[in-house]
Formats: sequence, structure tokens, C-alpha cells
Amino acid sequence: MRRKVSDASVRGDARRYASLTDPFPMWRGGELHGARIAYETWGELNAARDNAILLFTGLSPSAHAASSPLDPSEGWWEKMIGPGLPIDTRRFFVVCVNSLGSCFGSTGPASIDPATGAPYRLSFPELSVEDIARGGYEVVKSLGIERLDTVMGPSLGGMVVLAFAAQFPGAARRLVSISGTTAASPFAIALRSIQREAIMRDPDWRGGNYPFDRPPISGMRIARKLGTVTYRSAVEWRERFRREPIAPERRRPGPFAPEFSVEGYLDAQADKFVRVFDPNCYLYLSRAMDRFDLAAHGGSPEAALSGSQLERALVIGVETDMLFALPEQEAMAQALDAAGVKTRFEPLPSIQGHDSFLIDIERFGRAIGSFLLD
Amino acid sequence: MRRKVSDASVRGDARRYASLTDPFPMWRGGELHGARIAYETWGELNAARDNAILLFTGLSPSAHAASSPLDPSEGWWEKMIGPGLPIDTRRFFVVCVNSLGSCFGSTGPASIDPATGAPYRLSFPELSVEDIARGGYEVVKSLGIERLDTVMGPSLGGMVVLAFAAQFPGAARRLVSISGTTAASPFAIALRSIQREAIMRDPDWRGGNYPFDRPPISGMRIARKLGTVTYRSAVEWRERFRREPIAPERRRPGPFAPEFSVEGYLDAQADKFVRVFDPNCYLYLSRAMDRFDLAAHGGSPEAALSGSQLERALVIGVETDMLFALPEQEAMAQALDAAGVKTRFEPLPSIQGHDSFLIDIERFGRAIGSFLLD
Repeated sequence: MRRKVSDASVRGDARRYASLTDPFPMWRGGELHGARIAYETWGELNAARDNAILLFTGLSPSAHAASSPLDPSEGWWEKMIGPGLPIDTRRFFVVCVNSLGSCFGSTGPASIDPATGAPYRLSFPELSVEDIARGGYEVVKSLGIERLDTVMGPSLGGMVVLAFAAQFPGAARRLVSISGTTAASPFAIALRSIQREAIMRDPDWRGGNYPFDRPPISGMRIARKLGTVTYRSAVEWRERFRREPIAPERRRPGPFAPEFSVEGYLDAQADKFVRVFDPNCYLYLSRAMDRFDLAAHGGSPEAALSGSQLERALVIGVETDMLFALPEQEAMAQALDAAGVKTRFEPLPSIQGHDSFLIDIERFGRAIGSFLLD
Repeated sequence: MRRKVSDASVRGDARRYASLTDPFPMWRGGELHGARIAYETWGELNAARDNAILLFTGLSPSAHAASSPLDPSEGWWEKMIGPGLPIDTRRFFVVCVNSLGSCFGSTGPASIDPATGAPYRLSFPELSVEDIARGGYEVVKSLGIERLDTVMGPSLGGMVVLAFAAQFPGAARRLVSISGTTAASPFAIALRSIQREAIMRDPDWRGGNYPFDRPPISGMRIARKLGTVTYRSAVEWRERFRREPIAPERRRPGPFAPEFSVEGYLDAQADKFVRVFDPNCYLYLSRAMDRFDLAAHGGSPEAALSGSQLERALVIGVETDMLFALPEQEAMAQALDAAGVKTRFEPLPSIQGHDSFLIDIERFGRAIGSFLLD
């Protein structure tokens, strides 16, 4: 008798791929040929094809939002998506896409340009949040879905859902935007521009032409560490790390080497990230976030959303988010409301900053679950 | 007849120098020989020698806190110090010191080690906030001042004044700590560790042995830009920069080049800083801030301050400060109070973040001026 194994450390591959229209027109000009989007799904599409949730991600995750038989490794929203969980896969068919421009199966700057047989690198056309939305839209069309139950996304995904609603009227009945914004703030732009500069000033970046086995590690480390800090909050870290030192036997040698526990945490986060994320993809996605402005669709956020045919929306924000500040989500909710969409705004007191949606599953699960049940 | 000229663009030199005791013992071990502190003064020491204010600075400023006939260029606290200003030089004799370990005239890692005739660089002994306090203490002793009216400092200076009070009982009658802390938070440590890593990972740092005319510019730029962001606040920048673009004729060429006004501002700040600040000095001062813990003096902040013989204290904090958060100043005020020092705590609603003391002169001037008049 074989024993049933559920080992989260086993990494399979549950990705499927949707071919994009050829040519695929990019929002700010240029086009792609032979492009594709990687996605994963959970649950079953019902006969009416009206129970689908399309999920966009933040800047860095893959489409692997939750485990499944094909890939039992833990997903980035493992406790949110599944049977009986807030995004209940007994009821909904959930599709999560890897963003266009990313590097986990979808076409991006690290992909081969069929016109040259070499990676695009910086010859990839300018990427916009609107293109990421269109990529997801084409995935759901390829699945025979005319109208989504809900389009949902956190962080970058919380911007993408707005670009989705503005571009594809009637394509979703409901919208959930989590810790997103209608347009990046100067503070967020400043932080992302530092991350990009750290990568581009690393001599190993080589103007984008680094060998893939020798990426600009130093720049990527700085970018990721800065990301990690700005995704969390001072309040959380005071409780979590205090001024605990790194155990002497675990310290690296060298001048000014990490000494406090919080520094060791940043190191570990950076180590993981630089092994998996392509630097040019990072630059393209980061810049796309800066440039996004929902008002480009019609002159104002309200105008952009007024033709969306959305019935209802949920906008969630977090008090401790320094990157996508709570007033930005509040303004988004007001714009949706003014556009005629019945909108619920949920400001949450989570202490984990921008990343709260990944951690404070209790609060986020309750807000999302009850909205979806309505 | 000569016309009186007051041109703030003329840069003179008003610095004086105090020799430190030889050897000068460093708090965590090691000693300095032939070390000195650069300082500037404003106003006159009275006959009783009891009207002196000793001012410590943040991480990066020089002793040039205000203009004077010898150096008419604008100081870093120009609107705070002078006749009729909140720190009134008709009444007080003000001494501002360049921190030990810095590079504007005081001895630091960029100075010549008399034992070798070469710059110390990383052979400089470990620098502590306590050493900076002792450097200032020796300056006032050299001026024949037995007891200060007030010891004052913002940011790093707001930590130094605590180390001063803990180490030199009776040396000051009053204390003003602005946007400081009794011990760096893990969040501040994380941000500073990223700044240090950016410098040390720049190949031009060369393990600290860069030629002084070819410093690690890239790393210093990243460090300064990150500093600039964390010294300010998202609220201020939303009002100040919005999403204004850089004028096309002022844009630099290149991929992902700065495009928003806020990015141009960061560039300008970085350009200025890398021309004047020594990278090794930056590393030493930054690390000293991380390691400072007032509780090292007796087991708790309260114990550290209980023998200080301070009569009164003013502690100022700012709601929008992400680096030295308001609860840290509140805890400091409570510790002073518990140590028997009559303490006033002034939380200010300034929107400029940690750097508010440089900008919101109206609020800070009122708080400091009224405390000094009492």
C-alpha cells in the first residue's frame, strides 16, 4: 500500500500556459510575438462559466499562489486559497497569472525574442500595468470565460485590477484591490528608483547584458533588502526582532558585518531572491509601477472606472503601509463609488505594513471571504 | 568707504580646534593620539561661564550650524541660532562640534594616524556614541566651562546628549534631545545596514582603501538617497512633488533614467553629498548609531540618567518620523522623568519626518525657545 504523501518541500510544476494574440500590442507602443502567460488554477469552472476569480500578483511572486497535487509546495497565499478557505475553491475557480514581464514562465525581458533567437533584455518594449492586465484578460478568454466573478490583486496586482476594469468593460462583475493605488506616490517612486539604481550601478549589470549565471548580485541584494524593509513596518519589527544579536557562531566575518538579528533576516531574504528573480524583469516591472496612472484612462480615476460595468468592489488598505498609503486606497474606493460601483472600503489595523496581506490572514481572510460570500 | 557685504555664498572658515587628551580612550577599546575636534561658536561666554549651549549634530553635518563673520555661508540650523532667534546668541554662548569620527575637521577614519603617517581608514578604533559625547565634553572643558547651561542635539545628536549625561554627571544643567532615541530600533538598524552594504559592495570601496579622489560614488549615492527618503515623509512629498515630471531638457539619457521630479531631487541630494562626505567615516558613524544603547550605562535608561544631575530636559519627537519613531522619544522622556529630571515632552505634528527639525523651524523654534527661556 502506498502512503499518501503531502510534502510541501516537494516542488512540482502546476503551470499551464496561454498563448497571447500575435502580435500582442503593448500599451505604450511596440508589440510582442509568440508571447505567453504562465498560470495556475484551483477549483473547477462551473457549467455557466461564471464562478472564476482572476488573481494578479505583486511585483515578485509567481503564479503559484497555493499548493495543488501537481505542485505541493507552499504557495504565496497558501492560507487564503483552498477548500473552505476565504477564497473557497469548492465554490470558485481561481486563476492566478504570472505577470507579463516577469520571469516565472510568462514572457518578459529574460525570454527569447523570436525575431533574434536571443533574450530580449532591454530590447523588450516598455512594460505597462495595462499590458499585465491584458495578459491576464487573454488567459481568461482562452479558458472560455466571458465574465469573471471577481478580478483581484494585491500590491502591483491592486493596480493591475484597475487597469483591467478600465480596459475591459464588462469583463468582471466584481473587483478586489488590496494595498494598491490609482497612481504611485512620489515616496514609492523614490524608493523604487533607488532599487533600480542599485541594480544598474552594479558593474555586473553590464547595461542589461549580464550572463544569466552571473547576474548583478550586489545590486539585487540592495534592491531586495530595501524592498523588504518598505514592505514591513517599524512597529512589527520592534516586536519581532527587538535588538537581539545574531548568534556569534552564525556571524559572517568582515568589517561592519551583520550583527543584529534583523540584519540576518534581511540577508536571508536577499539570498533567496537573487537566486530566482531576473534583474531586467525587476527593472521593467518596477518602472511600470511608477508610471501607472489610472487617470490616463479618461482624465480621472472616476472616469477610468465609469464604463467598467463592475457591480461591486472591495478596497482594502493597511494603516502601517508606507509604500501604498491608506489615503491612496481610500481615494480609490471613493473613485469606484463615484463611478457607480457599490464599494466597500476596509482599512485594516494590521501592523505588518504593505505585506500584511501575506501575513495577517485572519483580518484579510475575513474581509475578502465575507465580500465574496455576499 | 567699504560696503558691508553679507553674501551667503561666500564660504569662509570659522572653525576652531580643540586637542583631545592624549591618549584619548575609546569607549569600546583602543585609543587615539593627537586627536582633535573642530567646532564653531556664536555669542559670548559670560563672566560666570554659565551661559554655554553645547550642540551635537546629526550624522552628516559639520560644526557650521549658522553663519558668522568668519564664515558667512548658511549653516545647517541658520534660522535657529542667532540674535533674537530661538537659540538666542545675545543670551547664550553656543558651541557646535563636528562629531569625532566625522570628516569636517575632527579626527576620524579619514584622518592621518600619527603612528603610521597614513590615513586610519579601517584601522580607526571602533567608534561609539559615547566617544562623540566625550569629544564634545573635552571641547567645553578646553573653553573653561565647568557646567553647561544646556547640552542639545538632534538625530544622532539626540543620542549623543544622552551618552553625555550618562558619562559626565553635572556637566550640563539642562538637556534637549530632538528626534533621538535611547537605542536604535530594528527598523532603523535595517535601513542603515542597507546603506552600509551599498557602500561596501561598491567595488570602488576596495575594502576601505579607495583613493580619496576616487571614492565609492555609486554606493554613497545609494546610501544618501535612501537616507534622504527615510529622513522625510510620504505626506510631505505628496504635497511637494506630486507626480510632476522632470522637464525633458533636464533629463539624463539612459535606460530607466529619472523621470519624475522626486527622482531629480534625490539625484541632486546625492550629488552634493558624495562630493563632501568620506565613505569610511559614514560607515563608522552609521554603525555607532546602531550599537548605541543607553541602557549599557547601568542597566536601564533610567539608571543611566539617574546620576546625571540634570535639572530639566526637553524631548521633542515628530509623528511622521519613521527612523526615530515618536514612541521612542516618549519612552526617553519617561526615563528622564523617572530619573528625577523635570522633563517636558513635545510631540510635534510636523509633516517633514525625521528632518522636521531642519525645516519646521516655526514649531521647533517655539518649543526650544520657550524651554530655554524658562
